[in-house]
Parts: sequence; structure tokens; C-alpha cells
Amino acid sequence: MENEIGKILDKLLDDFQDKGISRKELTKKISELYFEDIGFAKVDHHRKLRRGFPEVIFGANKTKHQTIEIAKSILKYSNKLLITKADRDCYIDLKKDFPRLNYDDLSQCIYLVPEDHDNNLKDGIVIMCAGTSDIPIAEEACISAYMMENNIKKIFDVGVAGLHRLLNFKKEILEAKVIIAVAGMEGALPGIVSSISTCPVIGVPTSIGYGTGFKGVSSLLTMLNSCSPGLSVVNIDNGFGAGYIAGLINRQSTI
Amino acid sequence: MENEIGKILDKLLDDFQDKGISRKELTKKISELYFEDIGFAKVDHHRKLRRGFPEVIFGANKTKHQTIEIAKSILKYSNKLLITKADRDCYIDLKKDFPRLNYDDLSQCIYLVPEDHDNNLKDGIVIMCAGTSDIPIAEEACISAYMMENNIKKIFDVGVAGLHRLLNFKKEILEAKVIIAVAGMEGALPGIVSSISTCPVIGVPTSIGYGTGFKGVSSLLTMLNSCSPGLSVVNIDNGFGAGYIAGLINRQSTI
Amino acid sequence: MENEIGKILDKLLDDFQDKGISRKELTKKISELYFEDIGFAKVDHHRKLRRGFPEVIFGANKTKHQTIEIAKSILKYSNKLLITKADRDCYIDLKKDFPRLNYDDLSQCIYLVPEDHDNNLKDGIVIMCAGTSDIPIAEEACISAYMMENNIKKIFDVGVAGLHRLLNFKKEILEAKVIIAVAGMEGALPGIVSSISTCPVIGVPTSIGYGTGFKGVSSLLTMLNSCSPGLSVVNIDNGFGAGYIAGLINRQSTI
Amino acid sequence: MENEIGKILDKLLDDFQDKGISRKELTKKISELYFEDIGFAKVDHHRKLRRGFPEVIFGANKTKHQTIEIAKSILKYSNKLLITKADRDCYIDLKKDFPRLNYDDLSQCIYLVPEDHDNNLKDGIVIMCAGTSDIPIAEEACISAYMMENNIKKIFDVGVAGLHRLLNFKKEILEAKVIIAVAGMEGALPGIVSSISTCPVIGVPTSIGYGTGFKGVSSLLTMLNSCSPGLSVVNIDNGFGAGYIAGLINRQSTI
Amino acid sequence: MENEIGKILDKLLDDFQDKGISRKELTKKISELYFEDIGFAKVDHHRKLRRGFPEVIFGANKTKHQTIEIAKSILKYSNKLLITKADRDCYIDLKKDFPRLNYDDLSQCIYLVPEDHDNNLKDGIVIMCAGTSDIPIAEEACISAYMMENNIKKIFDVGVAGLHRLLNFKKEILEAKVIIAVAGMEGALPGIVSSISTCPVIGVPTSIGYGTGFKGVSSLLTMLNSCSPGLSVVNIDNGFGAGYIAGLINRQSTI
Amino acid sequence: MENEIGKILDKLLDDFQDKGISRKELTKKISELYFEDIGFAKVDHHRKLRRGFPEVIFGANKTKHQTIEIAKSILKYSNKLLITKADRDCYIDLKKDFPRLNYDDLSQCIYLVPEDHDNNLKDGIVIMCAGTSDIPIAEEACISAYMMENNIKKIFDVGVAGLHRLLNFKKEILEAKVIIAVAGMEGALPGIVSSISTCPVIGVPTSIGYGTGFKGVSSLLTMLNSCSPGLSVVNIDNGFGAGYIAGLINRQSTI
Amino acid sequence: MENEIGKILDKLLDDFQDKGISRKELTKKISELYFEDIGFAKVDHHRKLRRGFPEVIFGANKTKHQTIEIAKSILKYSNKLLITKADRDCYIDLKKDFPRLNYDDLSQCIYLVPEDHDNNLKDGIVIMCAGTSDIPIAEEACISAYMMENNIKKIFDVGVAGLHRLLNFKKEILEAKVIIAVAGMEGALPGIVSSISTCPVIGVPTSIGYGTGFKGVSSLLTMLNSCSPGLSVVNIDNGFGAGYIAGLINRQSTI
Amino acid sequence: MENEIGKILDKLLDDFQDKGISRKELTKKISELYFEDIGFAKVDHHRKLRRGFPEVIFGANKTKHQTIEIAKSILKYSNKLLITKADRDCYIDLKKDFPRLNYDDLSQCIYLVPEDHDNNLKDGIVIMCAGTSDIPIAEEACISAYMMENNIKKIFDVGVAGLHRLLNFKKEILEAKVIIAVAGMEGALPGIVSSISTCPVIGVPTSIGYGTGFKGVSSLLTMLNSCSPGLSVVNIDNGFGAGYIAGLINRQSTI
Repeated sequence: MENEIGKILDKLLDDFQDKGISRKELTKKISELYFEDIGFAKVDHHRKLRRGFPEVIFGANKTKHQTIEIAKSILKYSNKLLITKADRDCYIDLKKDFPRLNYDDLSQCIYLVPEDHDNNLKDGIVIMCAGTSDIPIAEEACISAYMMENNIKKIFDVGVAGLHRLLNFKKEILEAKVIIAVAGMEGALPGIVSSISTCPVIGVPTSIGYGTGFKGVSSLLTMLNSCSPGLSVVNIDNGFGAGYIAGLINRQSTI
Repeated sequence: MENEIGKILDKLLDDFQDKGISRKELTKKISELYFEDIGFAKVDHHRKLRRGFPEVIFGANKTKHQTIEIAKSILKYSNKLLITKADRDCYIDLKKDFPRLNYDDLSQCIYLVPEDHDNNLKDGIVIMCAGTSDIPIAEEACISAYMMENNIKKIFDVGVAGLHRLLNFKKEILEAKVIIAVAGMEGALPGIVSSISTCPVIGVPTSIGYGTGFKGVSSLLTMLNSCSPGLSVVNIDNGFGAGYIAGLINRQSTI
Repeated sequence: MENEIGKILDKLLDDFQDKGISRKELTKKISELYFEDIGFAKVDHHRKLRRGFPEVIFGANKTKHQTIEIAKSILKYSNKLLITKADRDCYIDLKKDFPRLNYDDLSQCIYLVPEDHDNNLKDGIVIMCAGTSDIPIAEEACISAYMMENNIKKIFDVGVAGLHRLLNFKKEILEAKVIIAVAGMEGALPGIVSSISTCPVIGVPTSIGYGTGFKGVSSLLTMLNSCSPGLSVVNIDNGFGAGYIAGLINRQSTI
Repeated sequence: MENEIGKILDKLLDDFQDKGISRKELTKKISELYFEDIGFAKVDHHRKLRRGFPEVIFGANKTKHQTIEIAKSILKYSNKLLITKADRDCYIDLKKDFPRLNYDDLSQCIYLVPEDHDNNLKDGIVIMCAGTSDIPIAEEACISAYMMENNIKKIFDVGVAGLHRLLNFKKEILEAKVIIAVAGMEGALPGIVSSISTCPVIGVPTSIGYGTGFKGVSSLLTMLNSCSPGLSVVNIDNGFGAGYIAGLINRQSTI
Repeated sequence: MENEIGKILDKLLDDFQDKGISRKELTKKISELYFEDIGFAKVDHHRKLRRGFPEVIFGANKTKHQTIEIAKSILKYSNKLLITKADRDCYIDLKKDFPRLNYDDLSQCIYLVPEDHDNNLKDGIVIMCAGTSDIPIAEEACISAYMMENNIKKIFDVGVAGLHRLLNFKKEILEAKVIIAVAGMEGALPGIVSSISTCPVIGVPTSIGYGTGFKGVSSLLTMLNSCSPGLSVVNIDNGFGAGYIAGLINRQSTI
Repeated sequence: MENEIGKILDKLLDDFQDKGISRKELTKKISELYFEDIGFAKVDHHRKLRRGFPEVIFGANKTKHQTIEIAKSILKYSNKLLITKADRDCYIDLKKDFPRLNYDDLSQCIYLVPEDHDNNLKDGIVIMCAGTSDIPIAEEACISAYMMENNIKKIFDVGVAGLHRLLNFKKEILEAKVIIAVAGMEGALPGIVSSISTCPVIGVPTSIGYGTGFKGVSSLLTMLNSCSPGLSVVNIDNGFGAGYIAGLINRQSTI
Repeated sequence: MENEIGKILDKLLDDFQDKGISRKELTKKISELYFEDIGFAKVDHHRKLRRGFPEVIFGANKTKHQTIEIAKSILKYSNKLLITKADRDCYIDLKKDFPRLNYDDLSQCIYLVPEDHDNNLKDGIVIMCAGTSDIPIAEEACISAYMMENNIKKIFDVGVAGLHRLLNFKKEILEAKVIIAVAGMEGALPGIVSSISTCPVIGVPTSIGYGTGFKGVSSLLTMLNSCSPGLSVVNIDNGFGAGYIAGLINRQSTI
Repeated sequence: MENEIGKILDKLLDDFQDKGISRKELTKKISELYFEDIGFAKVDHHRKLRRGFPEVIFGANKTKHQTIEIAKSILKYSNKLLITKADRDCYIDLKKDFPRLNYDDLSQCIYLVPEDHDNNLKDGIVIMCAGTSDIPIAEEACISAYMMENNIKKIFDVGVAGLHRLLNFKKEILEAKVIIAVAGMEGALPGIVSSISTCPVIGVPTSIGYGTGFKGVSSLLTMLNSCSPGLSVVNIDNGFGAGYIAGLINRQSTI
């Protein structure tokens, strides 16, 4: 544990016992101060308290060593773990210490959920994608939302080149509390979905395409310029971000 | 009324009376078919049924004549009206026929709400902006969310150059059900807000800035690339879109 | 007439009379050589022979004087004239000399057709646009295709935010020989139209929109990346180009 | 077969037998509803009915397994197949089940045509390219148009750096019903071809070039800005799209 | 005169008289040091010695006062003056003091040449432009090259949409020592000219065009990517730069 | 004064008197909390304590009313004021209340310094610009650095097209503690200056230029890519930012 | 030989013998018609007659087979050959048939010159580069200009970060007839060279750099926006193009 | 040693002995003239005199041979060496000749410092980075500043997604003389740091991120547009440049 924080915590606990600050006050102060310094990273343990979800590791630009050490640090205080854009090799190494770990080959997500996680999942989130090639990003969104205790309805490969495939799922669209629509190429799916739905839609552009697709920029621009209100957007290929927001929105509906 | 639709409606009503289709079935079929053709526009009357909000007029690229005729058409079937990016001149003309119409000079919105609109507003939406120059877009978001029956908490001019101004409103941020954060220049506000909040945040980049601000592109990119999950984004200067989405999300929390 | 060309023509006529080259050969050679030099412009008279349509004047970057002189030069050898992006002032001046001239305020087109032009128009071209603000470009396409002796079916304001408005015209879409679909904002209309039609579709992005619309670039990219085959694209706001191509395609269907 | 569609089909057939809906009505309804769900894809079987060509597989972003399964699904209901941007490995696997399959190394297309396909090809399509390096995309266009029952005239390596090479083919250009012009680098070929032809020209920019070629963007812009009317454009390297449109246009000339 | 320079000049002259440095040495040293400081500008008088042409004033971003004061300073030591992108108002004021001054309305150039300037002009430079709208930039190039004592052959409005207009001037093209080709829109002219000429060609993109012309960027890219060697390029709308380079090249041919 | 802050201040003062927190501790806490809410702005009064300079008003996107009210609020607690990009009209209104106010027409800065400001200026900052058109931005930098109690050495119009003009000031360059180099067009000046100096150089790209200057982007890129280490960069036209940084650096040299 | 051309040649020779057209006329007509069709390429043999240099092969996007066949075709009628961006493997294969072939590892050029090529080289061309990493492109320019019978003066690694290195070569710069200046990174070298020289300068941006160098775009923009007249530019990494233009300019000085 | 320089040096030394020029004058003249020509590079030896640091080798675009020869040349006259972006292989070869050489695997820097280098390091520089993936660039900055005789305080992984991690280091931030803040993704860290610090801050965008991060462009734009004055920026991934500038600034504070 980082030293300076340690001293402040000691002082806080002294205050708690000596000067009668309340348990709620104590918890609040701790939640503002806590992180762990492991040299190349400062693991944000208190994010789980603050935002209901521990720090998520973006695996793509880290060494295997860094990813594993950060993961181990998180798992000291959390029974949930999500590493996105991670390769199977990293999973195999981590699994030795954490046998309940899962890996999804399509989305390249390593994840861990508590044993009773599936007992209490909530309906309401629909995740769609336009083409077969968009599935990895859609699955990343599914896993992320699933980790926030949701049961996902998946509707894949319903791009606008065959509008009847999409319209076949009108019922699911109308019953959703929040929809994630994932699309590369021209990215028209989220706008069309938004125009026939009654709930918020989150568009996820993917880098699928070629030429003037510009690795997802065309798809992103389509979504940002949609005439159909109700649609907001996240970064290209950011399935995790969309799944997380959908989880926040769906969580609201029980309050 | 458009002819082909007219015939179908006649047939539907015959069916209703003769073959006993239910009132619910009738309404559903009508809601799928209905719009009004006024020559230069096909007014989407059934959008109000479908999405809980009538068609909104984007005033910026239309002639005054076009805007007024579309507005009159909408008001035949709706007691709500919203025209964004509209000039005062257009408002003055419309007000002759609709004396209860309002105009907001900052955001250039013309709007009309039912007489009892304010009796039943819902709390939960916080709308923030980074600088004084971002207020017009923030106000457009406020009016849009207000029209969806929300009572807005406004926190303006709390950009990150003076972090203490923002942190002063931590309580409001933590109590919100959904937050809209409007920012031009470097657009860092929504990411910071998202990192200290527990609800979904909608970022609205504005075209405020100069040089490499590129009329809002820099701000948009900052929001799309935020490391802080929970943030989704709409088009530059799209206050209406953000207000509408916030309305959809906040509506969920009562269901 | 330009001198060097004049000498060649003299020689060609000598050959025609003396050495017995055929009338067809003579016409072909003349059509390869002919243009008129009026100082600041070389008017391409033989384009009408070569391509079935005289040179069209793009009014936007020319002085009124230049536009009028080029127009007069064209009308020496042609009973058709089209000036796009031209202001009313220029029209009024030209009309003094050519009283049968027309002006379309929406598209800012000055045009002249032969007296019997309307006797022989051909069906098959459908021109659609997504929003009221796209009408000026759609009308430019209509006038251009009309000048190539076509009778246009217009379907305006059928953007994808209200999909039922578009699907209402499925019959017209299926019967078309060639469709022009004009759209700004996210530009999704042409791709959707293409996916439900059986003929070639020409997409025309417009500069209508704001923020990341980037004056039509977003719309253009959407069309170029459409997953729905059968769609080709012209420059932003190039209604004339689309109308001209539609005319070329529709002309094929009689051969 | 997907369940919900199955039930609707049962009901349709009952209606056909019991309530006397016509065979034409039955076929139309089926063609609006039908696709096959194979998990990671919803194969659009009825596209062949709707658009005269089955769903085409874009091989570049799919796993070999996905490509092969989609191909097999298409071939259950179709005697035509086209997979673009596919590697030879995928071809070899598929050929085991479909021995009449072909592979074109240059364009990386896997394709299958009916046995009697070559008996009934139609003339009228000319496909040109500017340089030797553009041939792969030109060949993709050739195969695509050939699959739509056309006999293609190929004119390759006629870029504008040696104008006499192009002008040597003036006769073929003037006799064409529709021309595809493929070009990378500065992309001037389609505009020049359009200026000397009388039929519609489809420009295909390629990603061939270096430096400010920007992987085809320079070529695309040249084509979009061509002063020569009659030219429309498809995405960079989209040989298939151009071949398909040429097929649609050439099909018109027989109606 | 600027003080520090003044002192150095005093010292140089002392050296010349006392220590016997040669007149040539003296001149060389002076030419390396000399400029005049008029507060908001340091007029580079010795540029005329160094480069054969005095400093040229780019009028577009200067106040009228600044432009006039710099012009007056130049004319103290030079009998030549060129101000580009200058308005007529500035010309009228300057003409009061310098009655032999000229103004060209099309190119917005103010210029002055010595009285005997026209006695000794040199042939060899051809300046072409693609369209009527490109003439202002072509004229700026003409005046710039003329001021470097050249007699210009102008060939305007010969864009590639009417290739026969260009080919009609093959003789002039083949006889040129250096060619300037000015073009907006798709900018194909310089590449075509280069492919049929035997001398260096300088391409000048203009900002003429619309939509994806991007104010000259499309034209510039076309020229940079031309497959036809022999073509180099200057900035968009930089007629002066092209004229100056043509002057430098043509000057070589007499040495 | 804003209420919540007020209460906290009351409590702080009680603590100061009752529990013996030191005056230094008190000041530090106050400086973290303080701002004034004037409705459309939250004026950051404590920035002067925190950063040695009060909040600076960017006048360009504000109404005159907003600018004046924010200015008045700042002047309640500060004897310094800087408004950049402000028009003369705003200055005239403010001057009625603050007669010692100054306005600089070139840079459009309104500014106020304490009466004894000039008694204690520090040498060390050199501000250079490449051309006459860059002077407004250079002057904005001068005023900003002057307000931070510096005496500026100005060297204007020394762009690299006349290298001798620049080299003439080698002594001033070598003696500087920090240099600001302002340049539009190709922006080469800061890199050249950096290569011959021994102190940090701050490059300010300006929007001066045309065509591919892209309103300062070309100049910015040149500076960012300079091979000459020692150069850092601010936003296009951000003279204030550069002046402020130079002030911070020069202030270091006395500590 | 291509058939249609063959027939025309037969006819031309008949005319030569029968109708007395002159040998010069015959040669001119042949030079307009001639190229060789080798299937995937139409080799432009008459380019050597027309432009003084045979067709140059851009090796980067061609298969080894294509490159070798085109090379062999060129060498049937030419004693010069240049292949740029070619790998050593291709060189080794070609060398078996053409033992006098050369390969330059740095620039990846394969080239062949006549045996007496070095007897008659002309001085006047100086080729400079800014950094060691720019040498490959500078060498490509050297070989290209050398093949046009020039003796090149090379001055490498004289970038502006050490201005004294450049100024040391002032004599060579002032004596040059034409200079090529090659630079990546910020690309300031050509502008500085131009400002101290009296001849035309050709700038070659290279793709050397990182980050905002954008693979040569920053360098290109610097050159296009140079305030120093006399500089024109070619595509990024286009050493060949620059060498060819320098050859054309230097050839002028003997006429 | 390069010949021409050699002769000038001989002459200078003669002058020193014969005509009595001072030792200071001699040193100054030598420092303006000296570099070593090793064929593919002109090593700028006198940079160490001029700027207090020898030439730094950017290893990324050089061959191993080139890098090693330049390094050896520098080490003839310097006891310091820095090679950035260099691979370990190059280090191993160089270490044979220079056993005291160091290599940092994270930043890929080869470096050498004098034996007594650590005896005299200066405090004042703080280097921070936002995420673990930004460490390589932050370490490059650390080594560069360390070589300029500074003792660096490192604060890594304190990105704004966990604001409390950053605020924990407020003391270090307030005590710094100059701060380097390194960040990829949305790049908000430097602006936030600047807003709470009192010294100059240098922002270093990194290419870490995905999608619309555009390899560092998003991060760069955020920093350039920061509302918080006091922040200047260097090229993407230019850790060396930032370290060098920080060294220049920190050196000022002792004068």
C-alpha cells in the first residue's frame, strides 16, 4: 500500500475511534483516497465503491507482465475482473492462479464473475450488430453489460442491406430498456434502430470496412449525424464503453 | 392528407367497424402509417405516438416559410412544439397564431408546452457547461429535456481550468440520474464529471474555440477518447439530441 | 471562330467537295474539332453532338458578365441551355434577350428547353430527398434530367428518421428504371433505397447538416460505404451530375 | 430455419390454401420475410428474388469458418456464389464440396456460376484500368459483371500518362453501353473517358499509389470533382460494387 | 536605416578605404546585410541583388496602411513592384505617388515595371488554365512572369472535359520552354499537359470548385499524384510562385 | 458571494480563531475554495492567488454584456485585467467605469495594470514574428508577458525568406532567457531560432496564409516536427498562452 | 505488336511509299501511335521519342513477374531502364538476361545506362538532403537525374537544425542551375535553400518522421507554404519525379 | 575532418597566432564552423558548445550501421551520448567499444553519461504520465532530462479517470519548477495538472489509444486547446524533446 495514503488512513481510523466521526463519514473519506501503487501502475481500488465496477484493464498496449500484475492487484479487493483486447496467452497464465477465469475468443476478453453472479441478472438490454464481422465488438459489449448483472438479448447480423431481417425483431426492439447497436461500414444500423425504438440507443462504430471506411470514421460520422434523436455514440470499437453505459442506464430502471 | 394513406385509413376504419378489430389494433396500425404531405415536407405526425415526442424542426437550413408551415402542421395534432436554431423573426410570425409560444434568445429555440406542463416535472437531470460561451447549447439541452417533462438542475461555467468550481458541486453530481456535460475548447469536462459520478453522462462538444479547436472536433475527440467509462457523445452543438436522450433515460427510472 | 480551326474546316469542306469524303465522315471530323474562343472561355459547341447535351455553365465562380457571354455563345448553336448555381439577377438580364428562359428559385437554375420539349418525355426516373433542406439539390437534379427529356417522379422529405414515410412509396421505388436519392446529415437514405430497389441508384450527398456533418462529407462517406450494392455517388451538392447520369441510364432503356 | 419466420410461413401457406390468397401474393410475402439464421449470420436468401443476385460475401474481415458456413448456406438456395477478397486457402476447402467452384488469383474472388451461364451473355460493358497495379480491382469488377450475365470487353493499362494508348480504343469506348474505369494514383482516367464517351461511366478509385495518394483518397477526389458529367463513383477498391451497378444498367437496355 | 546595420556599413566602408578590401568584396558583404526597418516590417532591399527580383508584397493579410508603407519603401531602391491579392482601393492611393503604376482587376495585382521593360521580353513561357474561373490565378502568374521580363503565351479555358480544345494547341505546348498549367476542380489539366509536352510543367491548383473540391485540395492532390513525370506543384492559388519559378527556369535557357 | 462557499469560509475563520490553525493554513484553504457565481459565469477569483494571474477573459465568443460583467467581477478583487480578442466597442463601455484601462488595436486586447506596474519589469523575454501580418498575435503575447511584469524585446518581420534579417539579431537571441517566435505560412522561424539559441523557445503558429496553410495547421505542424530541440508549441493564434508561459519561465530565473 | 496499331502502321508505310509523305511526317505519326500490349500492360515505347526518356517502372505495387516482363519489353527498344522501389530479388533475376544492369541498395533502384553514358554528363544539378534518413529518396533523385545525362553534386545531411552545415555550401548553392532539396520531419530545408539561391529549387518531402509528421504530410505542407519564392514541390518520397524535372530544366540551359 | 572547414580552421589559427585575435574570438568562430562529414551524415560536433548538449540520434529511421557510425563520431568529441528509439541489437554492438553505455528497455534509449554525472544533479523537474502504457515515452523524457544533469521526480499512472490518484501528489506538483505531463487517449492530464500548478507544464501526447485516438492526434488537440494557461506541447511521442526543454527551463533557475 502506498505510504502517504497509509498514514492518512491511520489518522482517519484514529479520528473514527477518538473523535467520533461516523462510520459513513469514514467510508466516504476512505473512498476518496484509496489506490495501490505497484510501480508501473496505481490501481484504483476504490473505483468499485465509487462507480460499482472495479478498474477495467485495456490490454492492447500493455506487456503481459504489466497486465497480469495489475489484474492480480485488482483481484485482491474485488471478485470481478475484466480485461479487454487481451490475448489468450495472457489468459492462460492468469488462469493458473484464478481457475474460475473465463476467456472469450471472439472479443478477446478475459473476465471473472462471482460464483452467484447468474442468479440475479436483469433483463432490458438488447445488443445488435450489423454484420458477422462486427460480432467481436458486440460480444465485448455483451460481456461488459453481463458483468454489470444484466441478461443480454443478442440480435446479430441485421444490417440495413436486408431491412426485413431487422424489422423481424421489432418486438424485441420495442420492449428494450436500452439498446446497443454495433456497426462498421456505413454505420446506418443505430440510426434506423433508434427511429423505430422508444428507448435510448448507444451506437458503437467498428473499424470494419475498407477504403473510405477509414477504419470506422465513416461509421462514427453516420451515427453522430443521425437525424433520428435518441442515439448517442462511443469511440470506434469501444464495446466495453457501450456495455458499461447500458449497464448504468438499465440499473436506473430499478431505483 | 396524403391520398394513399387516406385509402388505407378508410379501409382500417371499415375493418374496425365491420370485422371487429380492436381499438388497440386500430391505433397500432394507424401509428405505423401516418404522416402528412405538405409538398416540401412529409410531417411525421405519428412520431409523437411512436416516440413520445413530436417531430422537432431543425430551423437552420429552412426558409421561414417552410419552418412556419411545418410548425403549423405539427400543431394540428400536437400541443407541443420545438424548433431549434430558429431566429426571432420566425418566432414573431408564428406567435401571431399561437400566442402561448415561447422563445429563448440564447439558444434560439421556439417552443410550446401544454398549459399544465409544469405541474408534473421530474427531477434527476443535471446539465452542466464548461464556459459562458457554451451556455447557448446547454440551454438548448435544458429546453429539450424540459419539454420531455423534466425539471433541470443547471450548473454552468464549471470548466476544468478551475477544478474547485466543479468539485463544489459534487453533491449534485452524485445525486443525478443522468448528466449532460457541454464543453467546447479541449472538452475535458464530461470525462472528469464521468469519473466522479455514478450515472450515465452525455457529452456535448460545442464549436466554441479557435485554431486547432477545429469548430468542435477537438472537443468531440476528447470525449470519444475519455478513459472514464460511462460517457457517450452526440454531434457537435447538438444540445437537443442530448436533452432528448437524457429525457429517455430519466423516463426509464419510473418504469 | 478560332482561326486555326477555321482553316482546318475550310480544308475539310474542300476535301468533301473535291475528294469525295462522305457527309458522315465530314460531320465526325468537324465534331472533333469545334469550339468557339470568346476570350475568357472556349465554348465547347460540339459537346452537344458528342454527348447529347450542350456545355452546362457552373455559375457559382463566374462573374455575371462571363456567365451571360458564355450563355449567349451556347445559344447560337443550341436550343437548350442550363446554368446551375446562378442568381436571379443574371436570369433577369439574360431573359431580355431570351424571353422563353426559365428560372427555378429553389435550385437557382436558369434553363431553356425547345418549344416542343414536353411532348416527348420519358418515364422511369424517380428523384427522392431525405429532408426539406435537401430540396434545392433535388430540384437541380430534376431540372437536369428533365432537360434530357425525362418526366420525373418526385418523392421529397422521406428520410430514414420516419421509415414508414419511405416504405409508403415502395411501389414507385420498384417500378423505377433509375433512382436519384439526395440526402445531407447522415446520408442513409440512398443505401436504404438501394436495398429495397432493383435498379441503379445514384446518391447525392448534400452539404446540409452541422458539426461533424462537415458540409456533406459525412453524408458522402455513408453512401460510399453502403453495404447495399447498386449505389454509386457524385460530388456533394452535385444535383446536375446526378440528373445527367440518370438521363444517360434511362436513355439506354430504349435502345 | 429461424422459428418466428417459420410460423409466419405456416400461417401464410394456410391462408393460401384456406382463404384463397393468390400465388403471386404468397410469393411476395415470402420474399419479404425470408432469411436463415446460422448463429453468427442471418443469410439473406430472398435477396436473389428481390435484387436478381444472391448475397455476396465480403471475405476480408471474416474467419475462414464463417466464410465457408455462409457460403454453404447461400448455395442451399442458389446456383451462384461470389466471395470477394478471399484467400486461396478458403477456396481449397470450399472446392471439396463444390467442385465447379472457380478462383481468380489476381482479384482473390471465389465464384460459382450455373453450368449454362456462358450461353447467354450480353455485350455492352467495357472495363478499363489505368495501370498494371489496378488490374486486381478491375478483375473483381469483371467477375462481378460476368456473374450478372455479361460478356466484358477488357482494356487494361491505358492511363493518361500515355494518352495515345487510350485514344486507340475510341471505337470501343463509343460503342459501350456502360463503362467501368478503374484508376489509382491521380485517378484521371475515368474523367477523360467520360469526356469522350456517350454512356454512363462508373469510376473506381484504387488504393494504388504512395505519399499523398493517401491509399486511394486522391484518386477518389479526382473522380468526384471531375468537370466531365456522366461519371459516378464507388468506394476505393470496390470492384464488386462497380461490376454490380454496371450489370444493373446493362440489364435495363433489354427491357 | 536600421542602426546596427548602419554601424557595420560604416565599418565596411572604412575597411574598403583603409585596408584595401575590393569593391566586389564590399558589395558582397553589403548584399548579405541590408534591409530596412520601418517598424512593422523589415524590407528586404537586397533581395533584388540576391534573387533578381525585389520583395513581393502579399496584400491579403495586411492593412492598407502597411501595404502602402512597405511598397513605398521598396520603391526607394527598386523600379519594379508587385503586390498580389491587393484591392483597387489600395491601388488608387498608391497611384497618387506613382502614376505609372498598373492594376489588374482579375488577378488583383498592383504592379510597376521600368519604362523600357517591354523592349526586351523573352519568349518560351506558356500559361494555360482549365476554366474561366481559374483565370484570376492564371493572370497572377502571367503578370509575375512578365515582370521577370518574359512575353507570355496565354491559352485559357482548355480543361479536360473538352480534350479537343487542349489538343488544338499541341504546337504551342511542344514549343514551350516551360509551361504553367492552372486548374481547380479535379485538376487533371497539368498532368495531361505534362504527358504531351517535353519541357517542365508547373501545376497551380486553384480553390475553384465545391463540395469535395475542398477549396483546392482535390486539385492539388491530383497534381501531386500525377503518373506523368515532369510536373511539379505550388500552393493552391499561388499564381505568383508559379510565375516566378517559370521566370527562373526560362532565364536559365540563355545562360 | 456563493452561499455554500460562504458557510465554509465562516467555519474556517471560526477554526482560525478558536482552534489555532495558522494564517498560512487559512490562506491555503481559502485559495482552494473561492469563486464568484454571477449567473452565466463562475469567476475564478482565487486563480490570482493560485497562479499569480487573475482569470483572463477570451472575448471572442461572448456577448458584450457577458464580457463586461465578468470583467467587473474580476476587478472587484484584482488590479489587473486582460481581455483578449475583444472589440473596441467593449473597451469604450468598460473604460467609463475604469478610466485607466488600455486598448491595443492591433491585438484587440483590453488590459489594465497597477499604477506602479512599470517600476519593476524584468528583462529576459524576446518576442519575434516572421511577417507583418503576424504582428497582432505577437503583440498579444507581448501584452500578456508584460502583464506578468516583464519588459519585452520585440523583433518583428524577420521571417526565413530573408535569413540575413534574422541573423542580424543573433546577439539578442543568445542573450534571451526565453523566446517566443510567432509565424504563419510555413512556420519555419521558431525552429531556426531554436537551432541558434540556448534558451527555451515557444512557437506560436498563426492563421496567416492561404491554400494549404489551412488557417495555421501547416505552420503548427512545422513547429511540432522541428528537428531542432528546445521548441514547444501552443495553439494557433494563442499569443496569450505563449506570453503567459514565457512569464512563468522567466519568473523561475529569480528563484 | 497490337493488331489495330499494326494495320495503321501498314497503311502509314503504304502512304510513305505510294503518296510521298515525308520521312519526318511518317516518324511523327508513328510516334503518336506506338505502344506494345503484353497482356497486363501496354508498354509506352514511343515515350522515349516523345519525352527523351523511356517509360519508368514503379516497382512497388507490381508482382516480380509483371515488373520483369515490362522491363524486358522496354529493353527491346531502349538502352536505358529505370525501375524504382524494386527489391534486390527482382534485380538478380533480371541481371541474368542483362548483365550490365545496376542496383542501388539505398534507393532500391534497378537501372541500366548505355556504355558511353558517362562520357557526356552535364554539370548544374545539386541534390541536397536534410538528414541521413532522407538519403534513399535523395539517391533515387540522383540516379534519375544521372540517367538524363547529368553529373550530380551531392550535399547530404545539411538540415536546418545545424544551419552552419548548410551555409558552408553557399558556393555550391549559388553556382547550381537547379537544386533538389529532400527533407522529412518539418521539411524546412528547401525553403531555406531557396531563400539563398538564384535558381529553381525542387522540394521533395519524405515520409521520414513520426507523430504529426503524418508520413510526410507535414514536410509537404511546409514546402507548399514556403514564403520563399522559387520552390516547387513533388509528391512525398518521389525522388524520381524530382530528378526527372531537374533533368528537364538543366537540359534547357544548353538550347 | 571535412576539408574546406579544415582550411578555414588553419587560417583561423594563423590569425590567432599572427594577428592577435583573442582566444574568445577564436572559439566563437570555430563553434560556428565545425562539423564532421562521415559520408552519409555531417555530425554537428559544435552543437555541444552551442546548445550544451551534443547531437542526439533519432534511431528509428536509420540502419544499424549508420546509427553506430554516427554514435562513434559523436563520442570522439563528447562524453555524452543519447540515441532514442534504438533497438537492443544496436546497443549490444556499440557496447563492445563503449562498455559504460546504458540501455533502457522501456524507452529504447541508448545513453552514456560521464562518470561523475550523478554527483551534481539538480532538483525541480517532475515527470508524470497518465497510464501504464505511456511509461515508455515518460522514461524517454526522464533519461533526456537526466542527461541534462537533473534529478527527476517520477509520478506515473495518475490519469484523470481516478482524479484522487492525481490530487494525492499536489505537494510535488506545487513544488516543481517545471512539469512534464505525458498522456495518450484523451490527453486531459496536462491541462488538469497545469490548472493546479504554478510552473510551466510541457504536455507530451502519446500514440497510445485506439479508434478516434488517431495515434495521438486526439491527445495532442486536447493539449493545444486546453483552457488552462501555462501548458505548451511537443510532437506526439516526443519524450526527448520534452525532457530537453525541461532541462533548458530548469537550468534557467540557477542563473
